[in-house]
Formats: sequence, structure tokens, C-alpha cells
Amino acid sequence: MDTAIQRRDDGAATIAAHSEGTLGERLASHYAQRIGRRQLQPGARLPSVRDCARTHGVSPSTVVAAYDRLQAQGLIEARRQRGFFVRPSAAMAAAPRHHEPNLALPAPVDTAALIRAMFRTRASLPGPGLGTLPETWLDPALLQRALRRAIANTDDALRYGEPAGDPSLREALSRRLSNELGITADSAQIVTSVGATHALDIVARALLKPGDAVLVDDPGWAVEHARLISMGMHLLPVPRGPAGPDLEVMRQLIQTHHPRLYVTVSVLHNPTGATLSLAAAHQVLRLAEAHDLILVEDDTYAWLAPPHSPRLAALDGLRRTIYVTGFSKILAPNWRVGALAAPPALVDRIVDTKLLSSLTTPALLERAVAWCLDQGLLRRHAERVSTRLAAARSRVVRLAQEAGCRLAAEPHGLFGWVDAGVDTEPLAVRMASEGWLVAPGRLFHVPARSSTLMRVNFASAQDARFWRAFERARDALR
Amino acid sequence: MDTAIQRRDDGAATIAAHSEGTLGERLASHYAQRIGRRQLQPGARLPSVRDCARTHGVSPSTVVAAYDRLQAQGLIEARRQRGFFVRPSAAMAAAPRHHEPNLALPAPVDTAALIRAMFRTRASLPGPGLGTLPETWLDPALLQRALRRAIANTDDALRYGEPAGDPSLREALSRRLSNELGITADSAQIVTSVGATHALDIVARALLKPGDAVLVDDPGWAVEHARLISMGMHLLPVPRGPAGPDLEVMRQLIQTHHPRLYVTVSVLHNPTGATLSLAAAHQVLRLAEAHDLILVEDDTYAWLAPPHSPRLAALDGLRRTIYVTGFSKILAPNWRVGALAAPPALVDRIVDTKLLSSLTTPALLERAVAWCLDQGLLRRHAERVSTRLAAARSRVVRLAQEAGCRLAAEPHGLFGWVDAGVDTEPLAVRMASEGWLVAPGRLFHVPARSSTLMRVNFASAQDARFWRAFERARDALR
Repeated sequence: MDTAIQRRDDGAATIAAHSEGTLGERLASHYAQRIGRRQLQPGARLPSVRDCARTHGVSPSTVVAAYDRLQAQGLIEARRQRGFFVRPSAAMAAAPRHHEPNLALPAPVDTAALIRAMFRTRASLPGPGLGTLPETWLDPALLQRALRRAIANTDDALRYGEPAGDPSLREALSRRLSNELGITADSAQIVTSVGATHALDIVARALLKPGDAVLVDDPGWAVEHARLISMGMHLLPVPRGPAGPDLEVMRQLIQTHHPRLYVTVSVLHNPTGATLSLAAAHQVLRLAEAHDLILVEDDTYAWLAPPHSPRLAALDGLRRTIYVTGFSKILAPNWRVGALAAPPALVDRIVDTKLLSSLTTPALLERAVAWCLDQGLLRRHAERVSTRLAAARSRVVRLAQEAGCRLAAEPHGLFGWVDAGVDTEPLAVRMASEGWLVAPGRLFHVPARSSTLMRVNFASAQDARFWRAFERARDALR
Repeated sequence: MDTAIQRRDDGAATIAAHSEGTLGERLASHYAQRIGRRQLQPGARLPSVRDCARTHGVSPSTVVAAYDRLQAQGLIEARRQRGFFVRPSAAMAAAPRHHEPNLALPAPVDTAALIRAMFRTRASLPGPGLGTLPETWLDPALLQRALRRAIANTDDALRYGEPAGDPSLREALSRRLSNELGITADSAQIVTSVGATHALDIVARALLKPGDAVLVDDPGWAVEHARLISMGMHLLPVPRGPAGPDLEVMRQLIQTHHPRLYVTVSVLHNPTGATLSLAAAHQVLRLAEAHDLILVEDDTYAWLAPPHSPRLAALDGLRRTIYVTGFSKILAPNWRVGALAAPPALVDRIVDTKLLSSLTTPALLERAVAWCLDQGLLRRHAERVSTRLAAARSRVVRLAQEAGCRLAAEPHGLFGWVDAGVDTEPLAVRMASEGWLVAPGRLFHVPARSSTLMRVNFASAQDARFWRAFERARDALR
């Protein structure tokens, strides 16, 4: 969206003058400009992906990225099996008009449109690309019971509440961390948040400043990458293998760029399902100690993990690790309850940052989660889900292999990391038009790049029709 | 906290080498260093404010700021009527130890400790400095009813939900804005948030980049200023008079600094209670149009405002205004429900930013608020509160004047802007030690500076004992 770069006070700056941005971004702004100037009229058909790639000397995936972007901007629309067309209202949207507000903005993060599409998909649509358990795997009766208890007391709704979060949840989590995960965290070290995403956001805002270097998993989760990029951070991707990060790459990146943080999903890593080995965890900690690095351990999938999976925070005794967790993947995605446990010296700063971002968080939902924890009901629910997930995993692995896919990582937890044999980005576009949501590898790489991998949700990819549709789409792309 | 500036990879950098920071910051780091080196032993008494000011050739308020900072860092403690003492564990906290993690960080925003103290105060303590209605003014029975209805359906807890927020709240707000405030906003233009603070945060993150200039009200609310400063923005304070901003100053700031946004509380401004006149609103809009400025209208006190108070968003037709509102000041501070209405061209970008910060927001609480809106129960509750607040206002104005204070602004809404005749910063410290929370003028100025003004919550300053304690504290400072 390079028109964005035109400043209100600098009307003369043109799109062409800006050579920053990816090829896809520049291609998109080229078309946006033509649409704005009505050189491409509403209703006009855009060149096919193949023709456009040939004309501009770029790869088809660059064209797909550019068209995605134009779609996200509302300038063009896809018509099934016919191609891409300029939307009726597009010229208005693209053209800066005289005396109209110039609301143009810097380019959004590259993956934003895809992420948004993922979250906008109604969960009732089949979504092997989704990041959560299917609704039918969750326990609405448990949620009802917990809420009925929680609303018996509305007193805490009448004040802002404790900045660090509801004491009952912080105490329940302190017990859980200590008894079940070997992480000794006093409740004073625990800060609640609006889901794990918010906790990760608070940590980044509290500890980093724009331009700071941050180590991240590659592959890793697009929302985390996109947030850090949007905050102006310099991402240092560390290849993630079955047992942990590539320590040699990590050491070199540390020595060259002096990052302040390493943000990692250590257990049931998204998207590979891999869990850090004890030996690798020890090496990561030694590296962190030698270079005064803070570790941010994102334990979003904690409740789906086998007992005794090692945590960095346990090994480290929460000295330089910030532990982040949440309940969206096991209890209720929309309750938006998450939390972090931090070294004592960082707690005040983290709480201050939380205050600036949202003041406090809703105690009602935090108390409901605390009750599920304290009654042992969440533990039992998680055990049932894990058993069911193991069966789903076997089935999906078989279906994937029968469809000619290769598992790029040992199957564990919620996600399979599957090699489709073709670029999964055009594959995802094609599958979406047939009503299936696929999470292409591009979402997980830093920087975003084409990939033949895709993330498959074991719980929601059990439908054999999905794999048949996949085969058709893949074969068409070959 | 200048020790903070020592980098992990740059152990040689010393505190003394950093001459940035306010006088108070530098004084605080001088003492932090002495404590860390045990030149000041645990239990040692710090010089009195007056002596310290004389020794270092600074004003007593600078010393108070430095001591505040050291208290916030856990290095010293105040003992009632005896002075300030080094805490037993302070040397440990201040001294960087060998092989211990260096968790030192850049200095926190200046006002953070004071803001945190405000939010950490239990609402059961008398708080004329608080920003919300007293608990006893709210309606727990209404909250119970709304929640009982909302939890009848837990289905929407089972998925992330719509990124823009619960449709029932967005539709109810669309009706309220159009029918009661003259703001035409389709529900597609409305995005929910975890309270108005979160909405303001999302807007700033979506539209600004570090270094951008932003116009803000002076006086204005510390949390808004602190957030923008923490994001690296360049704040341009615009003096706020009884009818609106000083337009001449505003014009000059715009011409010199080309700000992108003006963030303002137009109705029942915090802390002065002033409401933008229709003529001033027109002039602000003309300025915004001429210089392509986006207006962020923070309507946090909407429900306490007289009917027909003009909104910028109504005048502008939401073309270049983003309207922000919430329910913490009238319904339930801890439900953390807020929302914004934005020009259509900005909605996607704002939703993307919300996704990166918290994914979605809890639909349960949004549906509860929607029900209160739809049933007309919130409207009726707000009318009762407004009537009661008018009586409280008269009483507090009388008590303040009897205590020798001058009202610095016409009394309206929740807050009085009161001239105490002495620096309200040491006054607040003294009052806190007697158990009264006071909001000193320093919290509201950009940049923070000493002031004889304080913000008084009309609803919670009706106790004559507060005003007697105020008189004693003030007289002691004269």
C-alpha cells in the first residue's frame, strides 16, 4: 500500500519514488495506482496470475501476494474460476480526492490479510488450518458451571481491580506451575492478560524498543512475528529442529546482533509440534546466561503436552525466563484469559505496561478459569482432549500419507507440519475457494517466503473430503 | 533508573556518563548507585527533602520526585513522620551481581509509579483522586441481570469470535451513536476493545510510528500521555481552555511539527470538566481538514454528559474522526468493555492491530453491555447517577471553597480542577501517608511539571474529613 507513504504535507511524493517494500507490495501499489487513476475501470479483469508474472518478470507467488493485498484493500475481488476483477467502489477507495481526508497509512504487515482471513473464518466452516480445537471438542457445560459461580459475586466488577490480575487466578496458577510443571513462581510474580497473545505483547512492549534484535523460532507463529515486526523489531530467525533451536546459528546471531530476547514455543512448538529436549534446554539456558539474554517461553499448548515435558522456566528457576501461558487452546478461546510469570525484578515494569495497554483485565473470567483449575476439572478435561487428539493424530497422519504428503516433523500435539509437494500459498488460495481453510507455510517463515509446507490441525483435518479436495488442488498446481 | 542504561554488552558504561533524564531521575540514580555500592547501608536514613534540595541545589519537588522513584524501585521506604530509609534488601536490588541476570531496563515513564499507586489503591480507601465512580454508586443488581442473560449462551466462548467484536454490542452502539449522539456509524465501523484505554492504544499503534508528533490536551490524562511517550511519540501539548483548545497554539504546532493525530477528550474533559463549544469544534475540524489531521475523540465520560453535548465525530460525520468510548465510568470498571467507531477506510487496519495485540475480546461481557444498552437500563442508570453527581458537585465545590481552594474550571461532570495554593505533589505524598489519595496536577501536564492544581473526584470527595486533612497538609507545606 505505497500510496500510504504519501504524506499529507508532501503531496508530491509518488508511489514510484518508493522502492522499499517487497516485490509483491510494489506490484500491488502499481495496480492500486492504476485503479485509482481509473486506468483500470471498475469491473475490469486483471491479468491472470501467470500472465501478470510473465509481464512483470516476477514469480507467480509474488503476483498472488500482490492480488491478496489488493483484495485486502478492497480494490479487487476474486470471482470463482474467472479470475480477479476491479471492484465497483475501488476507484473511490484508491484515489485520493480533493479535500477528502487522506487516511493513507504505511503498509500493513505482510501477513495481516492472511491472518485476518483466518480469524474471520467462522469456526463452523471446516478449518484444517485453524489454530484451535473444534468447538465440539470443548466443554460448554464446564464453562457454564464456572461462570455461574463466578457471577455470584459482581463486587469486583465495580472497581478496576488489581493491575496484576485477579488474585484467585494468580494463586491457582502459582500452584499449578509449582505442582505440575516444576516452575516455582510466587503469585506476586504472575500477571494476567487478555490471552497469551496479550501477555506476549506486554512483554515485548515492556522489554524492547524499536530496532532491538529478537531471536524467534523459524518456522514460528505469524501473529508473533507480525507483532514484533509492526513494533519495529529486527527479527533473527533461528531454525527450529526436532530437539530444539540450531544452537550454532543462535550463537552466531547473538554474537553479531546482541539480541535482548529469545521468544520461543518450547513445548509442542507451533507449527512443528516439536518439544525442546532437556539437553537442548540446558544449552539454550547456558547461551542465554553467557550473553545476558532474556527468554520468553510461550507455553500456549501446555494443556496438550505430555506430563513432565521440560520447561525452560523450570530449569532456570524464572531467573531470566518469562513464562507465558493461556487457556484459549483448551478451555474457551473467547474468554481471552492468559498469564505470565516473570522474574521478580521485571514484574513492576510488566504491570506498568499492562496498565498502559488496557488498565486491568476482567476478573470475572479470570475467577472462572481459577475455579476450573482449583477443582481439577480443567486437568480432567485436558486429559480427555489429549486422548481424543492422539486418535485424531493417527487418523490424520494416515490420511495425509495416503494423499501423498510427507510429515516434515514427528506428529505431536495439535499441529502437523506437512509437506504438500507444491507451493502451499496458491494451494491455500485454491482451497479457500472450495471452502477449506489451509495454513500455508508462508505464514510461519521469517521473512515470509514460499514453502511447500503447511500446518494441519489434527483435530479438524479428519474429514476424508478435505484430503480429496487437497489432492485435486495440488494436482492442478503441479 | 539509569543503572538500566548499562548494556549487557557494554559493562563499562556508567551512570555518570548518562546526563539524559530529568533532574529527579539523575538524583535518583545518584542515590541508587550509592545504595548499590553500600555507601548507604540498609537502614540508613536519607537526608530530609529540604537538606537534600540544599545539598544538590535543586528544588524540594525534584527531591520528592527522586525519592518517589527510589520508592517505586524498592530501594527506600518512607517511615511515617521520620523520613526516608534504605530498605534492608535494597543493596541486593540495586547492585548488579556477578553472573546474575542483568534485567536492568530503560527508565520507566516518569509518572508510572504514581499511576500504579492510583490503580493499586483499594477502592475501599477514600480516594478523592480516583478516576471512577465509588462502588456504591454503581448497580450490581443490573450487572447480575445482564450477566445471567449473557451466560445462557456459552457458544461464542468456544471460538475466537469476530475480530471486530461481538455483533450485538456493535449494533447496539451503532444505534446509540446515531439516536443519541448524532454520530452515524454503521456497525461495520465499530470495533470493540478491552476498555477505552485499549481502544486508544490500538488507534495509536495502528496510525503512528515512533517519532511521530501527536497533539494532546494540556492538562490531560497521564495514562494517555505515558502510553504515547512509551511508544516514542513526540507530544505536542495544546492548552485546553473552557471552550476548547487554544487554536492559535494548535495552528502553530501543526505548521511546525506536522502531527498526524490530535487526541482529545472533547466532552467533560479530564481533568477540567470542560466541554468543547460548538464553535470551537467547528474550528478544530477546519484546522484538521486544512492540515489533514486525524482526530481521536475520547468520549470516556459520555454517560455523564448533558444531552446534546456536541461531538466532533457528529460534526465530521466520522470522516477524519475516530470516536472512542467505554463503560468503565458508568457501568463496571472491571468488565473492561470499550469500543471505537472509525472512518471505513481505517477499520481493517485497526482490526489488524487489535488482532496483533489481543486477537479478539471477550464476547460474554460485550453481550452483557449490549443488553444493558438495548433495554434502556444503562440510560436510566446513567440518569440516576447524573442527578446524584450534580448534588455531590455542589457539596464538594462548597467544601473546597471553605477549605480555601479556588476552582480553576467551571465544575462539570466527575472531576473538579482545583487550585490548592501549594505544590500538589508533596501534598499528595503527605495526604497518602494519612490514607487519602490525591491526584496532583503533575499527572496531567505535558511534560510533567509541578503544579498547585489537583483533580478532585466530586463523587468521592464529599467527606468533610478529607478537606480537614487537606487543610492540615497544605498548611504544613506553606
